[in-house]
Amino acid sequence: MADPPPAALAGAALDQLFREARTQYDWDCRPLPEGTIEALYDLLKLGPTSANCSPARFLFCASAEARARLAACVAEGNRAKVLAAPVTVIIGMDMAFPEHLPFLFPHADAKSWFEGNAALIRDTAFRNASLQGGYLILAARALGLDCGPMSGFDKAAVDAAFWAGTSVETNFLCSLGYGTGKNVFPRAPRLPFDEACQIL
Amino acid sequence: MADPPPAALAGAALDQLFREARTQYDWDCRPLPEGTIEALYDLLKLGPTSANCSPARFLFCASAEARARLAACVAEGNRAKVLAAPVTVIIGMDMAFPEHLPFLFPHADAKSWFEGNAALIRDTAFRNASLQGGYLILAARALGLDCGPMSGFDKAAVDAAFWAGTSVETNFLCSLGYGTGKNVFPRAPRLPFDEACQIL
Repeated sequence: MADPPPAALAGAALDQLFREARTQYDWDCRPLPEGTIEALYDLLKLGPTSANCSPARFLFCASAEARARLAACVAEGNRAKVLAAPVTVIIGMDMAFPEHLPFLFPHADAKSWFEGNAALIRDTAFRNASLQGGYLILAARALGLDCGPMSGFDKAAVDAAFWAGTSVETNFLCSLGYGTGKNVFPRAPRLPFDEACQIL
Repeated sequence: MADPPPAALAGAALDQLFREARTQYDWDCRPLPEGTIEALYDLLKLGPTSANCSPARFLFCASAEARARLAACVAEGNRAKVLAAPVTVIIGMDMAFPEHLPFLFPHADAKSWFEGNAALIRDTAFRNASLQGGYLILAARALGLDCGPMSGFDKAAVDAAFWAGTSVETNFLCSLGYGTGKNVFPRAPRLPFDEACQIL
């Protein structure tokens, strides 16, 4: 007989992760406490990816220079947010991730699965780097940070300004810090269970 | 002055979500408690997506018939897992998600952003349904369930067997239940901080 399953997390934890967490649009100037970014990576890196391929790469824009460089590449409505948040992370996806598979997945020759298959590489990088972006958002909330994920930016400009000469492309952006709550929308509706789900 | 940030979750919660959670390969026969799937959706649906587009659709294969139908479409190494787990969810992405934007994002005419732009629709559906898949995995763990995400399946076969006549395509699969711990690999290495991250 297996052990009983661990209980669900307490309601306050579910609130912090999901039910009361809201995308922030305005940021307090407090910096992140020393070591927060490393603690964030130490959690999110443990989330599962296909064959442990871990294709996401993370550029944490924290200096005034890096934030200004990024702000120049985002949609006008996102510019002030990137300048105000203490950190905005660029979540990238490394199209050369198969090179790391002999280290990341020692159980099998997973690198060979991808050889000569650019479409599989791209799909795997995009799916798994996005999953890792989801782990980042929830790990940040678990550490007591607010998040402001953004898709409104010029991908070619961010790629050129931050990933030039690498095999990495931008997936999306996420501000991290302490939101003021200003300009937060009332919670928008979600699809009811029966429109999004079926139990077969 | 803003309120101080909420504290990080307790170490035991971080363990349950990230540090001690492991992808499961063998499943106890216990079914999920009544209402678990609905509770899972009620959490994961709250995770952020671009313009609240919420493109993921979820088919929870719980009956013996549905599990057998799905098992016939997966890689041989995943077949026994799908048959043994009490539920395996097919995470799909609805390419017609813009139709729901007037309801989901009443703040702006987001539907018009996607008109005639099939590449943007596909990228947005894939990125955001993958994010929602990440929210599903962490919401399941938060509820005390184990997860077994899988990419090894015949996408065309799953699409034909489960989404025929719809605008939904399969993204990935995830078993849900109570793992026995059997055949769980030792934790595979992750990229060190300096290989995956930079602070700029």
